[in-house]
Amino acid sequence: MSLPPEFLGRLALIEEALRRALAEGPAELVRMSRYVLGWEDADGRPSAGGGKRLRPLLCLEVAAAAGADPAQALPGAVAVELVHNFSLVHDDIQDGDALRHGRPTAWQVVGAPQAINLGNFLYTRGLRQLADSRLPGAPLALAILFEAVERMVAGQWADIAFEDAESVTEEDYLAMVEGKTGALLGAAAGIGAALAGAPRGTVDAFRAWGERLGLAFQVQDDYLGAWGDAAATGKSTSSDIARRKKTLPVVFALASDGSGDALRAIYRAAPAPEDDTAKVLELLETSGAREHTRALARRFSAEAEALLADIAIADDARDRLRTFARFIAERDR
Amino acid sequence: MSLPPEFLGRLALIEEALRRALAEGPAELVRMSRYVLGWEDADGRPSAGGGKRLRPLLCLEVAAAAGADPAQALPGAVAVELVHNFSLVHDDIQDGDALRHGRPTAWQVVGAPQAINLGNFLYTRGLRQLADSRLPGAPLALAILFEAVERMVAGQWADIAFEDAESVTEEDYLAMVEGKTGALLGAAAGIGAALAGAPRGTVDAFRAWGERLGLAFQVQDDYLGAWGDAAATGKSTSSDIARRKKTLPVVFALASDGSGDALRAIYRAAPAPEDDTAKVLELLETSGAREHTRALARRFSAEAEALLADIAIADDARDRLRTFARFIAERDR
Repeated sequence: MSLPPEFLGRLALIEEALRRALAEGPAELVRMSRYVLGWEDADGRPSAGGGKRLRPLLCLEVAAAAGADPAQALPGAVAVELVHNFSLVHDDIQDGDALRHGRPTAWQVVGAPQAINLGNFLYTRGLRQLADSRLPGAPLALAILFEAVERMVAGQWADIAFEDAESVTEEDYLAMVEGKTGALLGAAAGIGAALAGAPRGTVDAFRAWGERLGLAFQVQDDYLGAWGDAAATGKSTSSDIARRKKTLPVVFALASDGSGDALRAIYRAAPAPEDDTAKVLELLETSGAREHTRALARRFSAEAEALLADIAIADDARDRLRTFARFIAERDR
Repeated sequence: MSLPPEFLGRLALIEEALRRALAEGPAELVRMSRYVLGWEDADGRPSAGGGKRLRPLLCLEVAAAAGADPAQALPGAVAVELVHNFSLVHDDIQDGDALRHGRPTAWQVVGAPQAINLGNFLYTRGLRQLADSRLPGAPLALAILFEAVERMVAGQWADIAFEDAESVTEEDYLAMVEGKTGALLGAAAGIGAALAGAPRGTVDAFRAWGERLGLAFQVQDDYLGAWGDAAATGKSTSSDIARRKKTLPVVFALASDGSGDALRAIYRAAPAPEDDTAKVLELLETSGAREHTRALARRFSAEAEALLADIAIADDARDRLRTFARFIAERDR
């Protein structure tokens, strides 16, 4: 499922603004930022890659729905995308992941110490877009972003802590995901509304909607991490399993009568000498984790739709946001 | 050389404000922040430790010199101290350092992945102090801080890159140090002036003074790293040497006729099986690096004094800043 064509125009706006934001600065940090954003390969040659720009698109779409020229929200869109990339660069170090979007991760290219610097640069450059914009909504947008990053960092802390935890409940898992993924998607939507000059109540309503959408997005991500097409997602299906990540399917299966004990035995043991992905997938399947994960993604998606229905915007604007939200929540890659 | 007693009152203000800034938030991140700030040991028991708070003191002293109640600059003081601690937490991961202020570094306590999160939390929490303060000078203060962090990150990148570089000139070294250390000390001074409501020209003059002071500070730090008292500095004298850091004495000695070739041979080789610190120190001594490093610290200190002399403030305020600057530049730990 590709981005519906009506959103492509704004995608072009975003790419231009991102390139402007990274047009100058410390040479190596800018060069590696361009690599991470997907515009260049590791040797500086033009390439196509990088992410789907869902967060900046969400930001612009909300600004438009709130009645503003979406271009007005570009500093916020660029900020959330750079903050997102900052978190990816650091996450890949933390998780030891070698591939992202089918390309070597930043720390594989420059080493973990320099990749820490790169993440810090992307974060700072992102914040500057908002701070230097001098838009009337910028202080509120910055406050939303700072709060989101604190929650994102706390979520990432929990995610790492879960790897060694004996027992993680679905409630623990959902609290972690609200921070790790929900907070920044909520911020993207809230910032779009803030930069559009929407009243505070509308800003908060868009933020709550974006956060719920983020939950749907992450649960779907966990689904794809176990049952997705590795060629399409650009990461190995088994990497979540190999790293013993407590994803939703795993949390569910660990708590199940049928598969819990067997899965716990595997997850407790030292890393298996042979690849045990197939065995783990079989246990997930037997436990009903596959259906449960899909059902939860659908539930969060429906809850997001209900929140959207209550926001006071024009019907055609709402229809467009609903289409975009479905694309986010039901993607297959 | 301890902090002159007339500055202790403001130190108490700073500690209180730092504790307020870290009074709430995600439990593990706040707990580890309290460890890094030196208030607690790794088990959460009260302890005394942590840094000298030079940057927040500088911020308050400048605000007072610019005619404001120094308490007005507290959000800036807290911001620069938390940003400084963010950089230390990440630097210690990057450099693999096990001790800081005589205590295990954060990554030794919680592992490198979680220490990356901790640094990101400290950075964000620091920025929020300024952003949420709603002081009239806060937007300028934030802009100063963002620029400083970008330069700090670029300096840290260069510092790491120098470890593997065959040739680093004194010019390269000074450019690196201006970013890595000078930028944040300059920002601390500039932010103090900005929050005091000083005119833009005065803000920039204080920033330039603080940056020069930062150069004097870092060169003295390099001196202490080779010839300081390990018990007083809280880090091993040999750690810069063991990590093959291109400190100023090393850069100087590598370029010298007498010691250059021998030192290069040592630095080129794989890490020595035995401790070669004594041999390296002997080569530094022979090259004249010790006198050169002291002389350069004195030169930057004198240049800072000259910059201070040109700032339009009352004579007694200038005297006080001069005393503080000498404490920073001539410390022995």
